[in-house]
Parts: sequence; structure tokens; C-alpha cells
Amino acid sequence: MPEIYFPHLTNNSLPVTHEVEVMDEKGRKQTISIPGERSLTIYLDKKEIVTLMTLGAAPEALVLGYLKNQNLIDTIENIESIQVDWETDSAAVRTIVKKNDIEALTSKRVVTSGCGQGTMFGEFMADLDRIQLPTDARLNQVAINQIIEKIRQHPSIYKQAGSVHACAVFEVIDNNVELLYFIEDVGRHNAVDAITGLMWLDRKDGRNLVFYTTGRLTSEMVIKGGQMGIPFLMTRSGATQMGLELAKKINLTLLARCSGTHFLIYEGQDRIQLQQENT
Amino acid sequence: MPEIYFPHLTNNSLPVTHEVEVMDEKGRKQTISIPGERSLTIYLDKKEIVTLMTLGAAPEALVLGYLKNQNLIDTIENIESIQVDWETDSAAVRTIVKKNDIEALTSKRVVTSGCGQGTMFGEFMADLDRIQLPTDARLNQVAINQIIEKIRQHPSIYKQAGSVHACAVFEVIDNNVELLYFIEDVGRHNAVDAITGLMWLDRKDGRNLVFYTTGRLTSEMVIKGGQMGIPFLMTRSGATQMGLELAKKINLTLLARCSGTHFLIYEGQDRIQLQQENT
Repeated sequence: MPEIYFPHLTNNSLPVTHEVEVMDEKGRKQTISIPGERSLTIYLDKKEIVTLMTLGAAPEALVLGYLKNQNLIDTIENIESIQVDWETDSAAVRTIVKKNDIEALTSKRVVTSGCGQGTMFGEFMADLDRIQLPTDARLNQVAINQIIEKIRQHPSIYKQAGSVHACAVFEVIDNNVELLYFIEDVGRHNAVDAITGLMWLDRKDGRNLVFYTTGRLTSEMVIKGGQMGIPFLMTRSGATQMGLELAKKINLTLLARCSGTHFLIYEGQDRIQLQQENT
Repeated sequence: MPEIYFPHLTNNSLPVTHEVEVMDEKGRKQTISIPGERSLTIYLDKKEIVTLMTLGAAPEALVLGYLKNQNLIDTIENIESIQVDWETDSAAVRTIVKKNDIEALTSKRVVTSGCGQGTMFGEFMADLDRIQLPTDARLNQVAINQIIEKIRQHPSIYKQAGSVHACAVFEVIDNNVELLYFIEDVGRHNAVDAITGLMWLDRKDGRNLVFYTTGRLTSEMVIKGGQMGIPFLMTRSGATQMGLELAKKINLTLLARCSGTHFLIYEGQDRIQLQQENT
């Protein structure tokens, strides 16, 4: 078996919470935890690309996923190294074969919003036609309930300090549910980008995976889920109309309002197997 | 009194919620409301600037506030018109005196994230030194409680459909609390930009105002609050470390976890007057 290539990555996670003293409405002082937030500027072969505001828990994965989701680098084999340095709040990315059109790629960037982070909306939309999600993938109710329960029990910065979003990826094989990745960040797009980065490193195919997020499923979240090749998207929150429309378009199964044993199937119910007594 | 100049603005709000049919965990169909999400591309004198993903409830105000917060236009008197057209998902902005450096301004744009929307982070940070918030502004506990209660009672898309953030601005004069602006959008940055736009149109000074948001107070939210000249920022949610640090730096009073009669003063407690029985 050929050896799998890994780029050289630093491992510069930051402490994610900080204690601060606050005063409540009765004038009582108390110490609470709040999440960190740092700026991280990505340089691709010395060219400044973007400044991301991040918790800093998984900066190298975030940079990897950002580059992939923005179509700035095609193959992980072309990344020589990523060096995160918190003294200069920078991530230096070196590639092996330099892209000639990097200037063109970055200058035609259109910034999307709605809690987006600067993505090429036009390219995303063009990408949609190329997304093929497995039609035969199935997820049953027991696995869904297990995913919700595992998330509930998982230790998190959110429980400790609030103000962050979590994304997680589960692998479901023969109803056995395993948590593969769990990332929190101050923006839900950073969390999904970091997961993209980890999946890229692991050469992980999306086929048997379920993507869970605490955040809302807006258009960009659905597109990124589709780009990862994951057929199932679950959220504790809701979805927007465009999120739902894009899910329909790429045949992605979308579950929202997931809490306890409750969930709503917004789209793709043919992939969901409800328990006998319910149907 | 000289007449106040207003640019020509269309008034093309979109319907904000849409009914969709979903299935719950027991296989029962139900109809729910979800918020809209549309792309809106801003053209400044025919130059493409940005694509925002928005609810579309106040598109002209959003465009105005975006241009102001990004320092793309200096005075409202220089805006001839803003024309929002949902057939092409575009907002055409015409200025009176064209900016020569618009190419330079937009090309050096650094995209920030953490739920950001493409802002000039460096410029924001440079702006901080110029922000002067009134040190003598005061807010008492009765007014704080009234603000929280008014938000609770206000009709909202959130209550109907979820998945949006709200921003509101209150004027507090002699403990009389009045709601001036209330905007919801799929991203919290859009909501704050739209409020900036409305304040700009009204030539509203921030001195006696309180800014309320349902979203987290990350660095960008604090910077935008400061840029509007508003000394008080309140949130139902929490704040990040950088949000708090920036609040300290510009002497902005920051209240978080506001709910019912509860709140936590994260910063600037000298501006807050707690009730006698508490202190």
C-alpha cells in the first residue's frame, strides 16, 4: 500500500476559554468563562488571503478546510506545510507546485454573508451540479437518537462558556454510531471548515457520515455539507428557505430541530427509516 | 432650517417567511414557517462589491449600512440612489461624486470571519482610536429591565420561524425607553448593518442609545457598536474575549446574558445604576 502523504503542520491550539470577572444585576461579583477569539491571517505562498476570527482550537485544520472550501488548493499533496504562529497571528501556507492563477482566483472573490466568511458564491453554485450524494444511504431513528444523545453528553466549550458553535461528524455503519470529529469555533463556518480540513487530511469519504451542527442551516452550510459528500445534515436549530432549496437540489437529507428524541425531516425523508410503531 | 437630503431608495422588502411541509419523528406531517434567504449583490457605480445573503426585510438599509461600515462611502449626501431589484438579486448604488480610489479600496479588502461578512479588519482596528463614547452616559436598572421586556414582547420572525438574529436600538431619555429600530436577518452582521443604515438616514447620534442584539458579541459587533457611537451594548447571549477586550479599549458598556430581570455587566459598570436595594 502506498504511503499516504501528510503536509507538515504545526499543532498550535490556543487555550479556548478565559476567566473574567463580571457583576450581576444584584451587584454581586462572579467569575465566568468566556471563549477566546483571535484573528488569524492566512498567507498562501506569502500572498495574504484572508483574516479569520477564530477560537483557535484547531487552527491548522481550519486553514486546510478554508483553502479547500474556497477552491484555493486542489489536492492535499500540493500542500508542503502550514505554520501557525500566534505571535504574529498568522498561518503561513507553502505549496509544492505554485498556482499561477492565484491572483486571479483571489481577486475575483465575491464575499458572501449571512454569517458567511468570504466565499465564492458563484463558484459554489456552479459546483452544485457536480455534487453527487449517495441515493442509497439510509439512517434510522435509533441512530438519529444516538447522535443527539452523544452530542448532549459530549464535553464542550459551549457548556462551559457559551458563544460558540459546534460541528460534529458521525460515522454510522450497521447502526453503530461513532463520533469522528467535534469542533467548536466562534463562527459556525469556521467549525465546518475545520472539519473539512480534518476529513481532507484523513481522506475521508462522506458516504456513511452524518454532519451535525448547533447552528442554522443557511445556504452556505448546505453547500459545504454537499461538497464534503455527506448525505445527512442535522441541526439543533432550523434552516432557511435557501438552505432547504439547495438541499432539495443536491438531494441532501436535512433534519432540523433535533433535540431529545424530537426532530423534523425538512427534506429527503426517503433516506430516513422511522421506527415501526411510528409509521 | 436647511432641508435634509435623502437619497432615492426603492422599498423592496421581501416576504420574510415561507411555509413548508415537514415530517416529525412520528411520521406526522406538519406545516411550519421558515425564514427566507436571498442573495443580494451590491454594485457601487456598476462595480461589483459584495454578495450578501439576507432575509430581505430591509435591503436598502442593509446596503446603506454595509457601505458605511465598510468605509466605502463617506457621506450620505454622496449617495444619489439605491435600487434593489429582486429579479436580478442586485442593489445598484449610484453616487454623486465618484470615488477615484474605489478599485484600491475594494482590492485591499481583507475578509474577516467568525461569522463576519468581509470587513476591513485592519481599518476597523485603526478606527478604534478615533471612537469617543460619552463617559457621562448612564443607564439604570429599571430601563435595562424595560428594554429586555420590550424585546420579549416585540413581534418577531424569530418567534414565528426561528433561524434569524435580531438587533434593536432603544433611546433612553430620563428613564423613558423607546424602541427606535428593530431589524432581523439571517446573519447578525446584516442586522447590525441595516440598523447602521437607518441611523445614517436619520442622522441619529448614538449618545442616548442602547444597542440590543440576540447574537453573540464578537469583535466585529463591538467595533460596529462603537462606530455607531452607542455607549451601551446588550445581548441575550454572551461575548468573546476579543469582544470584551475591544469594549474595554473603547470604553463601551457591555451587558450580556440579559433575560427577564437578569443580566451580567461584563464591562463599564460605572455607567450602570443598579437599584438601591441591590447595592
